[in-house]
Amino acid sequence: MKDNAPEYLEELISGSVVTPKEFQASGVYCGIKIAKDRLDMGIILSKIPAAGAALFTTNKICAAPVLLGRKIIKRGKLRAIVVNSGNANACTGERGYKNAEDMALLMSKHLAIPPEEVLVSSTGIIGKHLPMEKISAGIEQASVSLGNTAAHGNAITQAIMTTDTRPKNIAVKIKAQGKEMHIGGISKGAGMIAPNLATMLCFLTTDASISPELLHSCLKKAADQSFNRITIDGHMSTNDTIAIMANGASGIEITPTGAELSLFQNGLDYVTRHLAKAIVMDGEGATKFIRISVTGAKSLPDATKVARTIADSPLVKTAMHGSDPNWGRIVSAAGYAGIELDEANTTLHINDILVYEKGMPALFDYGTLRTSMREQNIFIRLQIGTENYEDTVWTCDLSKEYVSINADYHT
Amino acid sequence: MKDNAPEYLEELISGSVVTPKEFQASGVYCGIKIAKDRLDMGIILSKIPAAGAALFTTNKICAAPVLLGRKIIKRGKLRAIVVNSGNANACTGERGYKNAEDMALLMSKHLAIPPEEVLVSSTGIIGKHLPMEKISAGIEQASVSLGNTAAHGNAITQAIMTTDTRPKNIAVKIKAQGKEMHIGGISKGAGMIAPNLATMLCFLTTDASISPELLHSCLKKAADQSFNRITIDGHMSTNDTIAIMANGASGIEITPTGAELSLFQNGLDYVTRHLAKAIVMDGEGATKFIRISVTGAKSLPDATKVARTIADSPLVKTAMHGSDPNWGRIVSAAGYAGIELDEANTTLHINDILVYEKGMPALFDYGTLRTSMREQNIFIRLQIGTENYEDTVWTCDLSKEYVSINADYHT
Repeated sequence: MKDNAPEYLEELISGSVVTPKEFQASGVYCGIKIAKDRLDMGIILSKIPAAGAALFTTNKICAAPVLLGRKIIKRGKLRAIVVNSGNANACTGERGYKNAEDMALLMSKHLAIPPEEVLVSSTGIIGKHLPMEKISAGIEQASVSLGNTAAHGNAITQAIMTTDTRPKNIAVKIKAQGKEMHIGGISKGAGMIAPNLATMLCFLTTDASISPELLHSCLKKAADQSFNRITIDGHMSTNDTIAIMANGASGIEITPTGAELSLFQNGLDYVTRHLAKAIVMDGEGATKFIRISVTGAKSLPDATKVARTIADSPLVKTAMHGSDPNWGRIVSAAGYAGIELDEANTTLHINDILVYEKGMPALFDYGTLRTSMREQNIFIRLQIGTENYEDTVWTCDLSKEYVSINADYHT
Repeated sequence: MKDNAPEYLEELISGSVVTPKEFQASGVYCGIKIAKDRLDMGIILSKIPAAGAALFTTNKICAAPVLLGRKIIKRGKLRAIVVNSGNANACTGERGYKNAEDMALLMSKHLAIPPEEVLVSSTGIIGKHLPMEKISAGIEQASVSLGNTAAHGNAITQAIMTTDTRPKNIAVKIKAQGKEMHIGGISKGAGMIAPNLATMLCFLTTDASISPELLHSCLKKAADQSFNRITIDGHMSTNDTIAIMANGASGIEITPTGAELSLFQNGLDYVTRHLAKAIVMDGEGATKFIRISVTGAKSLPDATKVARTIADSPLVKTAMHGSDPNWGRIVSAAGYAGIELDEANTTLHINDILVYEKGMPALFDYGTLRTSMREQNIFIRLQIGTENYEDTVWTCDLSKEYVSINADYHT
């Protein structure tokens, strides 16, 4: 799961959004979730003004906080993020939008920061109005619980979880200009994960100094090679949000032409990739991490389409769950991806074992392959022609546990 | 499940491809499948020359018999169909194509009919070469077992089954011109069922007299309102085939301008709809039959896209499995279908109970709705705007049993 960190990055796996300087966080229980031991309200605060950037779901049905967030982020300034779990505030119409605005106002009041620098985020059940009394009490409680210890980082990480079984957090330290800067992040995922962001939240902080425009461009690049590479069940959510705050407290300046830009981008790529992969590994009912690489395509969109079609096929996912080298399912999924396919130049490797070569079954040792597929990681590599484009997506298997979780999740 | 048959149709639910006059069929065991009590080779024969039409998978990776079938059907004449189950003869390259040709030649030899009037069909595991010795013996055995009793109809119905749990067959009788004509059919499905034909075979016979061109047009119309309306897991197969033979033995002539055309079309529609719905009901692990109607769309493709996206969402399918009115999953699936959506005019009914009205949650009695969803049939009706286009698809739920079947199906 874990990439080897490049040398210039010092990995702080136990770090989070409070690792960068001048950031605080908190996570509390305010009664949105039924289980009292599960936190459901959190805040991330920059103690000093900060630049902000965010990416949101492309689902046409999007939650009230997403609608509000799209407006807020235009100004490029973000001081705080307030987030609740247990209720998505989606499909809630005007009243839902008003409730999201009220959450920002409450934050603004308690922390004495401009409401237009507060990003509101929600995750959980769709179609119920927020319990605003509980929310209000929760925001107050979270405001007085802020801090920057590991415990505070854990609390905010847990406060955004829904069906996640594990907290997902990381931070990196990067040396530059004789100083140190940090990038920290937390994410939640589990269900409704599809390309282009799905019920997935990711909040990032950094003490680098960077303009909102450049920050947005870095975030977009990082998301393209991380969150937009993952799919769990192909179902894109209404609430996906990736947001980052950069407060400059490290004193390291990131400019479009400076050498620090690539250090920063690499760090951000690393953090987002770690958090994205952690979401896949914690996919609902997942037991396997599956990497699907498609090569030889005529174009990047072709490669992407084929990789995602394979990743979303329930027949492929169940075969992987059963550690079964049923490669016909993989090849046939490629066949209905909606692109032209050069069957005579189509070749498939599973875990680097050749199973299908130029349109014909290859001879391979079934036992060896099957044994290798019983491991947690499976690597599917499909060549679909002789051109130069390729793409990779990450997904997980489909288990009975996925069905249990989703058939029993109550509205 | 069963539509009420129109009055002019006399339904013969126990009928099959041998119900129309001058047709014979057989089903035998030749050793392709491991279980000896499961038939794996079958023939359908018209004793007199017949017109033929067929539709095939649009998967770019298609099986050898499909490649051969596309050539054969161009001539518009079909005397016999030979089909094996247990091996799909797909992803088998040139050798696979030669094997499919050899199956047609063997049939031709045994039945003294032109090989270019034989349609070959295969279903089962992908990527293994056909065991031609067994196939050859099987074709010989099936050739001498032909007959037109109910037992023969049952045998061919069973010979095409793979993970199907029930045989699927029907026939109708239609009165016209003071005579009687028949349309009979069998189908198999279960897994890999997606719109535009998936691992799905359907063979139809009729004793109507009709030109190949008109027969093709009727078959296309019938498939559009039946097999192209169903999806089980969104995975389109390499082998899908719908074929029909029309031998004219009833003496009833179907012409483009005659009154009999609509009688014939209605009969064919009825038969194909019955067989398509039977496939959904027998979907791998299915416990529910779900009808999804999308109305108010700007165009038919929009309506279709939304209906299919909902039908293919694992989150929707698992919620239906749990009889859970988790309508947020339905609405959010519509949101990522890739069309413009008018949220303020989006309204959802489940089993005719209003749950979401013009972008806002509706008040409804949860207990009543949940109780109604515990029944076998669920009806999802989503209005996505105020325009006039609509479409309907049929699907089933996603159960743990589906995962078991597909994780344990061995290559």
